Amino acid sequence: METVMSEAAVGYAKANGGRFVEELKALLRIPSVSTAPEHVADVRKAAEFTAEGLRAAGMENVRVIETSTEKRKGHPLVYADWLHAGANKPTVLCYGHYDVQPAEPLDEWKSPPFEPEERNGNIYARGAVDDKGQMWMHVKALESLLKAEGKLPCNIKVIVEGEEEVGGEGIAAFVREHGDVLKADAALVSDTEMFAPELPTLCVGLRGMIYTELEAKGAATDLHSGMYGGAAPNPFVALAQIIAQIKRSDGHIAIPGFYDGIEEPTKEELKAWRSLPFDEEHYRKTEVGSTELTGEMMFSVLERTWSRPTMDVHGMPGGFIGMGAKTVIPAKATAKISFRLVPGMKPDDIFAKYKKFVESIAPRGVQVSVRMIHSGEPIVVSTDNEYIRAAKKAMAEVFGKETVFVRGGGSIPIVGDFVRELGVPTVMMGFGLPDDNLHAPNEKFHLANFHRGIESIVRFFGLVGEGAT
Amino acid sequence: METVMSEAAVGYAKANGGRFVEELKALLRIPSVSTAPEHVADVRKAAEFTAEGLRAAGMENVRVIETSTEKRKGHPLVYADWLHAGANKPTVLCYGHYDVQPAEPLDEWKSPPFEPEERNGNIYARGAVDDKGQMWMHVKALESLLKAEGKLPCNIKVIVEGEEEVGGEGIAAFVREHGDVLKADAALVSDTEMFAPELPTLCVGLRGMIYTELEAKGAATDLHSGMYGGAAPNPFVALAQIIAQIKRSDGHIAIPGFYDGIEEPTKEELKAWRSLPFDEEHYRKTEVGSTELTGEMMFSVLERTWSRPTMDVHGMPGGFIGMGAKTVIPAKATAKISFRLVPGMKPDDIFAKYKKFVESIAPRGVQVSVRMIHSGEPIVVSTDNEYIRAAKKAMAEVFGKETVFVRGGGSIPIVGDFVRELGVPTVMMGFGLPDDNLHAPNEKFHLANFHRGIESIVRFFGLVGEGAT
Repeated sequence: METVMSEAAVGYAKANGGRFVEELKALLRIPSVSTAPEHVADVRKAAEFTAEGLRAAGMENVRVIETSTEKRKGHPLVYADWLHAGANKPTVLCYGHYDVQPAEPLDEWKSPPFEPEERNGNIYARGAVDDKGQMWMHVKALESLLKAEGKLPCNIKVIVEGEEEVGGEGIAAFVREHGDVLKADAALVSDTEMFAPELPTLCVGLRGMIYTELEAKGAATDLHSGMYGGAAPNPFVALAQIIAQIKRSDGHIAIPGFYDGIEEPTKEELKAWRSLPFDEEHYRKTEVGSTELTGEMMFSVLERTWSRPTMDVHGMPGGFIGMGAKTVIPAKATAKISFRLVPGMKPDDIFAKYKKFVESIAPRGVQVSVRMIHSGEPIVVSTDNEYIRAAKKAMAEVFGKETVFVRGGGSIPIVGDFVRELGVPTVMMGFGLPDDNLHAPNEKFHLANFHRGIESIVRFFGLVGEGAT
Repeated sequence: METVMSEAAVGYAKANGGRFVEELKALLRIPSVSTAPEHVADVRKAAEFTAEGLRAAGMENVRVIETSTEKRKGHPLVYADWLHAGANKPTVLCYGHYDVQPAEPLDEWKSPPFEPEERNGNIYARGAVDDKGQMWMHVKALESLLKAEGKLPCNIKVIVEGEEEVGGEGIAAFVREHGDVLKADAALVSDTEMFAPELPTLCVGLRGMIYTELEAKGAATDLHSGMYGGAAPNPFVALAQIIAQIKRSDGHIAIPGFYDGIEEPTKEELKAWRSLPFDEEHYRKTEVGSTELTGEMMFSVLERTWSRPTMDVHGMPGGFIGMGAKTVIPAKATAKISFRLVPGMKPDDIFAKYKKFVESIAPRGVQVSVRMIHSGEPIVVSTDNEYIRAAKKAMAEVFGKETVFVRGGGSIPIVGDFVRELGVPTVMMGFGLPDDNLHAPNEKFHLANFHRGIESIVRFFGLVGEGAT
């Protein structure tokens, strides 16, 4: 069933689609890299831009909320609401983030990461799909409804954060301390992807993570490898020996107790995954591009990336990394190591086991220390509620196809907090594509999905307002 | 026996010692980092400075010789000679290098690396002891003799290179192709160190090396570790697994055939090493500063660093090395890996075995490639010749102590070429100290040793000229 209200708003969105894209480009030009101290002002600029967009859309009580405390320097939240749909209508909390990943390596971008460019129906820029483009869909869906109809079909709160890419500590604290402000009947998150082009998809589970730095210290100062090689500890060799003991060549993580208590997916879920249009060889060739896939080969790729934990090394700072040769034994070296966690695993527990293990295997002469950079809990959301049903229907209407349920391998830390702290069903309705190069050079967003996303969200709000699910 | 000629020159050196140090400072101010493309002009400036110093000393036929060819862009050599001592006098070839190691990490220097500063009787700067300070001793010894006496006690050729820190390819080619130009009866190299303060030391053996880059390629592009972690190959994990398989935790190198054909030191040599003033615990504490020493514990530290081969990792470029977190699985990563070689090992043979081994153990989904950056052969020089005897005596006269024979763990590639291509006995008379921070921040040269070095060289030339050994 489609409502008249939705149709008018959809018409408005179609008529104004070109302008929506131009506005998104302006947002994409702000290099709001939340992990980079030199971009603090840009991150704030992106927050202000988002607040202004919500105001222009007709949202009320728009506020930029500081998350800095004495202990930490945080990036601000943006809040807005519109609560005149009536007490008998549900309240939906919309979540997105305006911060982005670093753009390095810059020389692999075909167009500069902060100069958005349209090519082949896509918009290329850092943050195009993760998550500025998807967050902007929320803003534009709200604008379309408010401008076309003068009101919204349900009550809406919006919270947009600037620390999603660095662990979301600020919003987590805000949820804990001011949960009442964000009180809602359901949450809508658009920060995930569709399983395949044209296939409407709802994400109902995410892996958690811990992101750490493992430092190995050997000599008191950098030493000449000719004079000291053979007697002085080499921290890179030590890190290599530790990493090789953490992750075996068959993908198994050898930290004692690492897999304890893992909750397996249900038989129904596994069966549904097997019916998804997924070919491991096609995935290897077109998405990964390696000669072979890796990991725990007794599990399918979807299981390995959705419902199995894993470990990755992201970079190993230290020593000499310039061109040519320097014969140095560095005094210290670091490995940036993260673990993806699945339901049944607790970040603090895994961190403690990991720390204990690396300390127990630290090679002779090397002192290791482990530091947690950030963490997020794994979650699985129930599919048995009216909001998931409304989302499923809205997407099916727009795409003309049955909506599928999948999980995501990544982490959106705040979703766990919504589920745990606010106790609300969370709808993860995302419009990215598997080849959108999230966190990589040449990130893009397919513009047709940007527009279909706005329409899906308009229809979702309409269905929620009607209770017609 | 001391000669009148030496005494006059020694007097000149003493009277002009202050000026010699000021000239050395000017040379140290030139950042002639041979591995860094951005310092090409500085390297040339250091060559010109050296040539000018030789001219001012009174040396003849001073030339800056290009080593660039169609195939490679090389740094120049500096040549000079003075050949009027008579046909009955031997000819000594003096070798040094004017290029230096990179100065990174810059923030660990107490004074800037290219702004030489005197503190506590030392001069601090990159290249102070390795090798600008020691090369300048040669120039100043020659000046002292020529200015005080108007002549040299033996015939002298000087060759100074600018690629020692990057493998010395240019001088190696020059020795192969123009060996006659450098024809001499003996070579004098001052690029090593004294075994202990106040202990006159001749180095009679050096380890060789191969310096390589091992690259691991996994996915075609950088990937998001949330979405792909568990299925996509991680090149850092692969490198860690490979490195851990090359070097075991007991220091053993597991490359098949790696230790084949190694020539052990003689019993006499081992006995002499045991009588050197060396305490492993003191060395650990004051030189290395680690909690324990590492490596093949069944060998002494001197054996481990002088007569045993080893492997070190110098840096692992790739991925994300900034502050904070980036959840990337990089498409590729590299490890800068070197091996120190001892007599009986051939660089090309070891490289081939290493390459074969890493290719055979490359983890699933990862393609490895190995590139040789540079190499040098290990050498041992005979102590049974008049030049070593003259050097032993000259140093003993200056220091008032018996001269000891040691080996060095480092590599001076050209020494092998002198021995092999020119067939000349090579005297490695060095004046560095074990704590001079070679290749590390706060490199220094003890100024008393700079002056004693000049005097030792003056006396060495005198003894060689007299044949009084």
